[in-house]
Amino acid sequence: MATIYKGNILFTKTQHQFEIIENGYIVVEDGKVVQVYTTLPTAYQHAELIDYSGKLIIPGMNDMHVHAPQFRNLGIAMDMELLPWLQNYTFPEEMKYADVNYADKMYRRFIKSIWKVGTTRTVAFGTVHKQSTAHLMKLMHAAGLGGMIGKVNMNRNCPDGLCETVEDAIADAQELIDVWDKEENLVRPILTPRFIPSCTPEMLKALGDFAMSNNLKVQSHLSENKGEIAWVKELEPESTCYGDAYNRYNLFGQTPTLMAHCCYTEGEELELMNKNQVFVVHCPTSNCNLGSGKSPIRNFLDKNIPVALGSDVSGGHDLSIFKVMVYAIQVSKLWYANSDKQMPFLTLPEVFYMATKSGGSFFGKVGSFEPGYEFDALVIDDTELNHDNYTLLERLERFIYIGDDRQIEHRYVRGKHIDEPTFENV
Amino acid sequence: MATIYKGNILFTKTQHQFEIIENGYIVVEDGKVVQVYTTLPTAYQHAELIDYSGKLIIPGMNDMHVHAPQFRNLGIAMDMELLPWLQNYTFPEEMKYADVNYADKMYRRFIKSIWKVGTTRTVAFGTVHKQSTAHLMKLMHAAGLGGMIGKVNMNRNCPDGLCETVEDAIADAQELIDVWDKEENLVRPILTPRFIPSCTPEMLKALGDFAMSNNLKVQSHLSENKGEIAWVKELEPESTCYGDAYNRYNLFGQTPTLMAHCCYTEGEELELMNKNQVFVVHCPTSNCNLGSGKSPIRNFLDKNIPVALGSDVSGGHDLSIFKVMVYAIQVSKLWYANSDKQMPFLTLPEVFYMATKSGGSFFGKVGSFEPGYEFDALVIDDTELNHDNYTLLERLERFIYIGDDRQIEHRYVRGKHIDEPTFENV
Repeated sequence: MATIYKGNILFTKTQHQFEIIENGYIVVEDGKVVQVYTTLPTAYQHAELIDYSGKLIIPGMNDMHVHAPQFRNLGIAMDMELLPWLQNYTFPEEMKYADVNYADKMYRRFIKSIWKVGTTRTVAFGTVHKQSTAHLMKLMHAAGLGGMIGKVNMNRNCPDGLCETVEDAIADAQELIDVWDKEENLVRPILTPRFIPSCTPEMLKALGDFAMSNNLKVQSHLSENKGEIAWVKELEPESTCYGDAYNRYNLFGQTPTLMAHCCYTEGEELELMNKNQVFVVHCPTSNCNLGSGKSPIRNFLDKNIPVALGSDVSGGHDLSIFKVMVYAIQVSKLWYANSDKQMPFLTLPEVFYMATKSGGSFFGKVGSFEPGYEFDALVIDDTELNHDNYTLLERLERFIYIGDDRQIEHRYVRGKHIDEPTFENV
Repeated sequence: MATIYKGNILFTKTQHQFEIIENGYIVVEDGKVVQVYTTLPTAYQHAELIDYSGKLIIPGMNDMHVHAPQFRNLGIAMDMELLPWLQNYTFPEEMKYADVNYADKMYRRFIKSIWKVGTTRTVAFGTVHKQSTAHLMKLMHAAGLGGMIGKVNMNRNCPDGLCETVEDAIADAQELIDVWDKEENLVRPILTPRFIPSCTPEMLKALGDFAMSNNLKVQSHLSENKGEIAWVKELEPESTCYGDAYNRYNLFGQTPTLMAHCCYTEGEELELMNKNQVFVVHCPTSNCNLGSGKSPIRNFLDKNIPVALGSDVSGGHDLSIFKVMVYAIQVSKLWYANSDKQMPFLTLPEVFYMATKSGGSFFGKVGSFEPGYEFDALVIDDTELNHDNYTLLERLERFIYIGDDRQIEHRYVRGKHIDEPTFENV
């Protein structure tokens, strides 16, 4: 049974330009896009039509890097760099997640908030705690939102309460994939070594082996901050670069891999990311707040390295991927202003593509309205912003720059309408 | 008759720290703060008490640089640098303001929007049109909001429809000050040469003379963009720097002066600003959007040059001065990341001070709750954001970083409660 969605349709097949269909139709069957039409074919004239005429219909947002247990710290403690910030704010908060009741209370809030800002798929770090992380998956599943959730692995340079053994790390990972790692699941686990300084070589080796033998995807952090990079050099003196420290343990694209930040990636690390098709998750709000630096995104695009966007809450201060798009453009412009103009700044279709089709490709066919793509969508009612006959593209640009959750009227994931989570079924 | 406001009071006497009074009292008489108390003196026990217990009471925001007629372009056209952006988007829009009816329609929207985001005083550029600019003053006055409004002066390098003669410029300025420039007025005129490239030497001379003889304040743009600076060097070859081009015409602190941007101010220009106590209006959102650069704000503070904040709509994409504070900190952190750490980044009390007491000092005693200050205030109901027993300072930080107009419950200007403008009295 097909369902037809009528409205002003905007999406990006490529990073070069928007596809724009004024008053068009999206035909959806079994949660997947069949085709987008300017005129509805007669074959569908008796199908259910959901009329969003005049509104904007765009793909849902993919937040490819966020720390769910840092939700309490959103918008505070913005006075430190990465490493002291981890010690003073982040680790103490994450320790509270040993208590599943605390996790339950805070993760419900977190999920309501990502729902609110129009994020339909989320790749999140949990904490080192298996139970709380499994609970986060359960809540995401109950909300009908998609994504991948990582139980964090760490066994050095962290407080006792966040430290695990290699054996526990692998046993927990096995348990989580046994329950959750099913092809059809909207919410699946992802292997999550926190970063090199948090994992001993034994841990990294065990995790890499586990990822390879289970074909499990991987996420971590890379080259975020100069102090961190120097520290990794000390900890892994045999690695030729930070990325190589992951690569030698098969945690760098041997299975599909997301690496957040990459502010200082160049030379060999850049080549390795290209060769292994490791995803850069660009988190410009976080890079600004923690004073990390400006990630050279144009270089990644030129090298055909896939780039997605992440809110990185609570290093980032805004859960909205729309606002992350704005910062991505702005940071690239500051870079442009300081670089004798060698690197053209990022454009709106480029960052929109990162947030939708590029990030979505990590899940399969997600983030576009091309045939066969899962129907993840947002319906934007921008009446209040559209006071002067703007073009459709201007309306989208205005919503991205000056809009907020008040204009997001409906959310769909895999063709299902997603209401505000109540978690009644948990 | 005193009125007492009860609540959690936060403000900045200096840029170094917040004054925080939990459940305190602000005594206001004749629109001015008498004193702030932790316990209400018995003398006031029968005075009218307005109870905002549990909420935050902070000074109103001062937006010291915004282009009211660019309101239509808010959030669009973010793909150009300053000079082509002026030619292609800004000037064509400003030409529409020859029509007072168009101005009336758009300026009402603009004023409702600044009200919404908690801006209580605004220093705005209008257009070159006297009638529309006078109408903007009238609407601001009707709304009960404070500020200074500039009829723009320009007579070169602009389309015909925006060009005026020197004689008209002076006659219009005279007419506007005759009607509006009264000590007691909340809305007053300010002299507004657009920038050096828009004004011939004859125009600059006439304006400087006029400012001096009428003790009229001045606003303009300075050293925003490298291309602009090179152009000024061509146009004014005898000036030793861009600032000197204003200074030799008595438009650089001879009367109180605001200069927006100052991204590339150093050396002699910096010394001159210090000597003449010219205000820097820092507009970091605009500097990001137009790829202008990062203004070296720490240098200005070290030199005791006054710094205020501006939204610079529509170069800036957000009318909220709270969001401008966030960008000011973030841009300073990127600078910190790239500068071998010579310049410590801006802190929350520093940017709050810029937005309140520093900007407010341009109007007199505005922007603080110290005795004698005009009571410009916002009441923030952050219930929804305050889900986990944050400190008062954390609550303010969260509101600034992650809040929006939904948390601004009340606005006061000079002790008067300001409702959403309806303009029924215009």
